[in-house]
Amino acid sequence: MSITAVNASIITIGDELLIGQTIDTNSAFIAQELNKIGVWVKRRLAVGDVYDDIWKALDEESKQSQIIIITGGLGPTADDITKPLLCKYFGGKLVVDEKVLTHVKYLFEKIFRRPGPMLERNLKQAEVPDVCTVLHNERGTAPGMLFKKDGVVFISLPGVPHEMKGLITSKVIPYLLSAFEMPAIVHFTAFTFGQGESMLAELLQDFEASLPTHIKLAYLPNYGMVKLRLTSQGDYKEEVEKELQPYFERLQELVKDFLVTNKDVGIEVVVGQILKAKGKTMATAESCTGGYIAHLITSIAGSSAYYKGSVVSYANEVKENVLSVQHETLMTVGAVSEETVKEMVSGTIKKLNVDFALATSGIMGPDGGSDEKPVGTVWIAAGNNQKVETLKLNLRFDRQRNITITANNALNFLRKFILANS
Amino acid sequence: MSITAVNASIITIGDELLIGQTIDTNSAFIAQELNKIGVWVKRRLAVGDVYDDIWKALDEESKQSQIIIITGGLGPTADDITKPLLCKYFGGKLVVDEKVLTHVKYLFEKIFRRPGPMLERNLKQAEVPDVCTVLHNERGTAPGMLFKKDGVVFISLPGVPHEMKGLITSKVIPYLLSAFEMPAIVHFTAFTFGQGESMLAELLQDFEASLPTHIKLAYLPNYGMVKLRLTSQGDYKEEVEKELQPYFERLQELVKDFLVTNKDVGIEVVVGQILKAKGKTMATAESCTGGYIAHLITSIAGSSAYYKGSVVSYANEVKENVLSVQHETLMTVGAVSEETVKEMVSGTIKKLNVDFALATSGIMGPDGGSDEKPVGTVWIAAGNNQKVETLKLNLRFDRQRNITITANNALNFLRKFILANS
Repeated sequence: MSITAVNASIITIGDELLIGQTIDTNSAFIAQELNKIGVWVKRRLAVGDVYDDIWKALDEESKQSQIIIITGGLGPTADDITKPLLCKYFGGKLVVDEKVLTHVKYLFEKIFRRPGPMLERNLKQAEVPDVCTVLHNERGTAPGMLFKKDGVVFISLPGVPHEMKGLITSKVIPYLLSAFEMPAIVHFTAFTFGQGESMLAELLQDFEASLPTHIKLAYLPNYGMVKLRLTSQGDYKEEVEKELQPYFERLQELVKDFLVTNKDVGIEVVVGQILKAKGKTMATAESCTGGYIAHLITSIAGSSAYYKGSVVSYANEVKENVLSVQHETLMTVGAVSEETVKEMVSGTIKKLNVDFALATSGIMGPDGGSDEKPVGTVWIAAGNNQKVETLKLNLRFDRQRNITITANNALNFLRKFILANS
Repeated sequence: MSITAVNASIITIGDELLIGQTIDTNSAFIAQELNKIGVWVKRRLAVGDVYDDIWKALDEESKQSQIIIITGGLGPTADDITKPLLCKYFGGKLVVDEKVLTHVKYLFEKIFRRPGPMLERNLKQAEVPDVCTVLHNERGTAPGMLFKKDGVVFISLPGVPHEMKGLITSKVIPYLLSAFEMPAIVHFTAFTFGQGESMLAELLQDFEASLPTHIKLAYLPNYGMVKLRLTSQGDYKEEVEKELQPYFERLQELVKDFLVTNKDVGIEVVVGQILKAKGKTMATAESCTGGYIAHLITSIAGSSAYYKGSVVSYANEVKENVLSVQHETLMTVGAVSEETVKEMVSGTIKKLNVDFALATSGIMGPDGGSDEKPVGTVWIAAGNNQKVETLKLNLRFDRQRNITITANNALNFLRKFILANS
């Protein structure tokens, strides 16, 4: 391999990241996009709105990486630290960029439709250091800025995720592709469900030992699923893929009992693809997952082709009145029971007129448990108009994690039911 | 003020963070918990599973912070880099910790109920450097480890969020409280809705200028809401709170037209508190938000006291069959219309037998828009059995952001309706 990886550092600026008020989703997006074009993110660093800390971060990261992506510190109420700092760091002065100014005025007059004159702080968004290349931000008032110093490229972007994403896709990636010669990085991901990380590792011990040193296997456990990722790099994407393919096939063969798909997607995407291919429909009846399964499914554009809806029957009377669960069932065996989830499935198939239905009922905690049904007791049912199958889980996590694991397990259970019954 | 802030750095280890496969939620949790006890997180750094990069990170961060929290690199399939590295870095050797070994065996036999002998890789979890203090991990096999070097405390934790959280709460925070004298850091947060960041900043310009230099005001915009956070620190919590209180009251007074609450909580928490206080119930009928509002509400433990459920009526036939929206309405004005969301509210109040109902219908994108109803067109309705009020939004973001903003706006619209009509 002759082309070596280009290293990048991502610096995020903002006190909100350091007091934990905001979860940093920007870095993951940027890392993904850079990775796709063969840039290896070596370090991600978050610093506060502190002049010296930002300056130091620029100094340090530029010693380790050829590309520095900076997000945050540019909004209309930012502490006015970042832009003057960049100006000084790269030896320029702030000037009004006419194109940005026109754009800011356009946004305020036509899009935001603010009455009255524009605010000074908004007009200041059009000021940029005269030593930068302006990256036009279609989606907001703060432009991206590109600087070069001692062979290192620095790109400063606003921290608003929607604006940052637009700039990364439309400006940053095309620029980097034109400016650097990058190796091709290829990831192949096998998505497994139903077996723990340790046992998979045991199963794959010999396989892992047989891999050439430049091919890496990573275990990515996530709420009941484990993704197995093979990574390699080289000069040409096609060559890397060709070399990796037989290893990936062997990997899939070894884990075939647990394999969901050979793509890096969510379980809700897999269920949707199966339904779409078969021309079938589904609906959900959610008690303990409280709409989270519906949310996962409807987050996918186009899900209305196979998903009709959900009855989030949080109260027992909704299970009775909307889903026709029998009063006697709820009184004798309770809402968290095999009978109840079975009746929820049957009621959903009839009421929502679908081919398949999925139901959940459980105790997510921290309260509501009993000796007989402790917190973490969950019943899942999946079925069609012929039969209904059930699964019981005994979870032992906190509320959020119990909800997520239940949703993933339920979707995987439905996936298996559909494949076995259609 | 005589006590100065103790600085911390958080180092997360793992390639999955650097290729963007995983979003780092651990750092936010750790930062929050440290912040509560007066530790200022100065830097957050993520590095890959690369020996030299981890070593360098330890060296660098220990020059800047007195406390270094390290997560990741300790699982049963980790690349066996981190633990040997820590061993070498602190000058020790790996030994079996009998207490950890007993715990690992207990987990496998009693909790995981794995058949057969334990795996070598799981037994290795009981090995720790002999120069560390073991932090017992009740929730998993990989223990936490505490090291000291040149006056700096290093704490290494597993990367699994559930295990990391348990260790932070039960071991790390109590240790830090005993080992350091920390200043009290106080944040007061005013939660506003309905006014943009720039306009709020304009409104608060004089107030902000009047603040003593040690009191800071931060603007935290988030999907339609803006949180305004005042921060100060000092020797005693009570004194800091007492000094901050009048400024916080003045702040609330200035933004009173947009003020939702003076707590740092989600809008779904505020709605729940109002309903609980009034002894009223609610339900939702969600088309475009697809169960996300139900998920937000049911993520709160105890929400079953006021929330009965949701009909996620993604398909029109569900709107008709379950919510009794008139066929004619859907045929003439369509699903995304004021009439439809009004009928959804009325249907929900009757069908789910609640005091208040909230409905959404819109086009979230990227497809499905028309000239008359472009992507981003959203209708929201809130009502009781007396009347129904509506709100139209014109959003211009991507699907996920449109869903989140719609959910937040809908909950705020319901909040105002309940306050005005009960």
